[in-house]
Amino acid sequence: MQEKIIDFLKKADGFISGEDISGALNISRAAIWKYIQELKKEGYEIVAVPHLGYRLESSPDKLFPHEIQFGLSTKVVGKKIVAYDSLDSTMDIAFDLGMHNAPEGTVVLAEGQSRGRGRLGRNWSSPKGKGIYLSIILRPLSSPSEVSRLTLLTAVAVSEAIKQVTGVSALIKWPNDLLVDDKKIAGILTELNAEVDRVKFVVIGIGINVNTRPDALPEGATSLRGILQGPVSRVELTKEILRQVERRYGELNKHGFAAIAQCWKGLSVTLNKRIKITDPGGMIEGVAVDIDKDGGLLIRKDSGVVVKKTAGDVVRVKS
Amino acid sequence: MQEKIIDFLKKADGFISGEDISGALNISRAAIWKYIQELKKEGYEIVAVPHLGYRLESSPDKLFPHEIQFGLSTKVVGKKIVAYDSLDSTMDIAFDLGMHNAPEGTVVLAEGQSRGRGRLGRNWSSPKGKGIYLSIILRPLSSPSEVSRLTLLTAVAVSEAIKQVTGVSALIKWPNDLLVDDKKIAGILTELNAEVDRVKFVVIGIGINVNTRPDALPEGATSLRGILQGPVSRVELTKEILRQVERRYGELNKHGFAAIAQCWKGLSVTLNKRIKITDPGGMIEGVAVDIDKDGGLLIRKDSGVVVKKTAGDVVRVKS
Repeated sequence: MQEKIIDFLKKADGFISGEDISGALNISRAAIWKYIQELKKEGYEIVAVPHLGYRLESSPDKLFPHEIQFGLSTKVVGKKIVAYDSLDSTMDIAFDLGMHNAPEGTVVLAEGQSRGRGRLGRNWSSPKGKGIYLSIILRPLSSPSEVSRLTLLTAVAVSEAIKQVTGVSALIKWPNDLLVDDKKIAGILTELNAEVDRVKFVVIGIGINVNTRPDALPEGATSLRGILQGPVSRVELTKEILRQVERRYGELNKHGFAAIAQCWKGLSVTLNKRIKITDPGGMIEGVAVDIDKDGGLLIRKDSGVVVKKTAGDVVRVKS
Repeated sequence: MQEKIIDFLKKADGFISGEDISGALNISRAAIWKYIQELKKEGYEIVAVPHLGYRLESSPDKLFPHEIQFGLSTKVVGKKIVAYDSLDSTMDIAFDLGMHNAPEGTVVLAEGQSRGRGRLGRNWSSPKGKGIYLSIILRPLSSPSEVSRLTLLTAVAVSEAIKQVTGVSALIKWPNDLLVDDKKIAGILTELNAEVDRVKFVVIGIGINVNTRPDALPEGATSLRGILQGPVSRVELTKEILRQVERRYGELNKHGFAAIAQCWKGLSVTLNKRIKITDPGGMIEGVAVDIDKDGGLLIRKDSGVVVKKTAGDVVRVKS
């Protein structure tokens, strides 16, 4: 009911009388007053003027599902949103929902995570109310080997969303980091549940340092606030991310990976650089020359041999 | 406590006095009598003779963890067993345990499944008390593309276990069925949870038609009872499967896939046959010439081109 009242206030674009709300939602004016008090506690600024009614002055920048969904206009991604004040990891909850047949596009959001994670079981710092920590369930008709495309697709979508909302250009470090000024601003983690040759579902995790103060960030990281010297609306950025992921995912399903790969290359800080890449198989050094159709990185060693890597840690080598 | 009493009776190899049990387990003789009555209800035949004590005449063929673990002597597979009288699917429970850090080798067993499943979401008929329905959690250090090896490894292990316990030769139809007289006797299902390039855990499901009456089986299926004209100990067969899986899995980790692939080829009904194979990509016809290092099937089309398939439905073509 609170959500319905907020929707009313937002659509009103000015004052709306308690009588109008009362009539439309079929509740007493006393009940409306009670709900308004609760909304104020959640951070909504609402003024009440006798004879005029209520007016919404501002909404808190909290990742409530109804805030994200207001004016979202996606068809799949974010149609269902599950939000938590704090939890261990949005990945775990999303995986659990995926196992229990949650529909494609289901989003899990948290204000803070106590055990936010990155690739290879690493930690992802997730201070409460400061960042965006979300996981999206997708159900692509593909084999496990094609799933790394979704990591790259999401990197492109998040970079575009950041650009759209804040004007900041975030570049992509293969396979899953977004950098501004060579510092990490966002990470993407893709996990899957599959039969041997058929993906059942994928969970894409996105973590973004939005309003964290620079001095509270891990070394080598930055935040949008740090770059812009001011806060960014997490709600607006989250909405734009969901829209861009939906758009790019639709493009992948309809037209294949080629155009997305092209965008990815344009945003890459890894290609055409001399790098060292380390994975369980060892370390190799060479020039990152391309990504292949599955999102793997192709490295040309000094011997001229080109090697493909589907995962690993990349370090730039000064040449 | 019941399990401890059963272990005592088994090790006794004859009568054991209530006094001895009482002393060793530090419980009253009246309590022992009560436990013995409960064990009888579960199907254990126990005789009690004044002045001699108790003797175990026979154990029920039920998949109790302590029955499976008695004399099992594996190091990893089956060290932890979770058993259910009936459930939806051992795969779901095993996946859930895997997500919650259950150790490698954890086994989930059920007497019956209401939603036992096969590959591609198909149904696996799982009548209560008649078959073996189990799932094993493994945590191999590998990439998702290597996981199909585990399907083939398990097929070899299950075939060897059936041979060992019953003398019946079950052959392997790629990728995941065991056949006797061209009829399905067992199926293997491999599911995984992974990051893009790193398996977190694998759940291997094994379903075997053991004591099902032939007239209660789906078309194209058979059971060990149907072939042998008599019942088979599900407990003994389950134990042998866990041993063989452990043995072959250890071999894979130490020496690689080559020797296992060799065994698989020797048991295959698919290789060197003319087949049609259907997958989401379409249908192709040709001769199945080999499996590759990841367990994929290589088919030589009439044009001479060799195609690799990692999944699909195979139908034999009379040539």
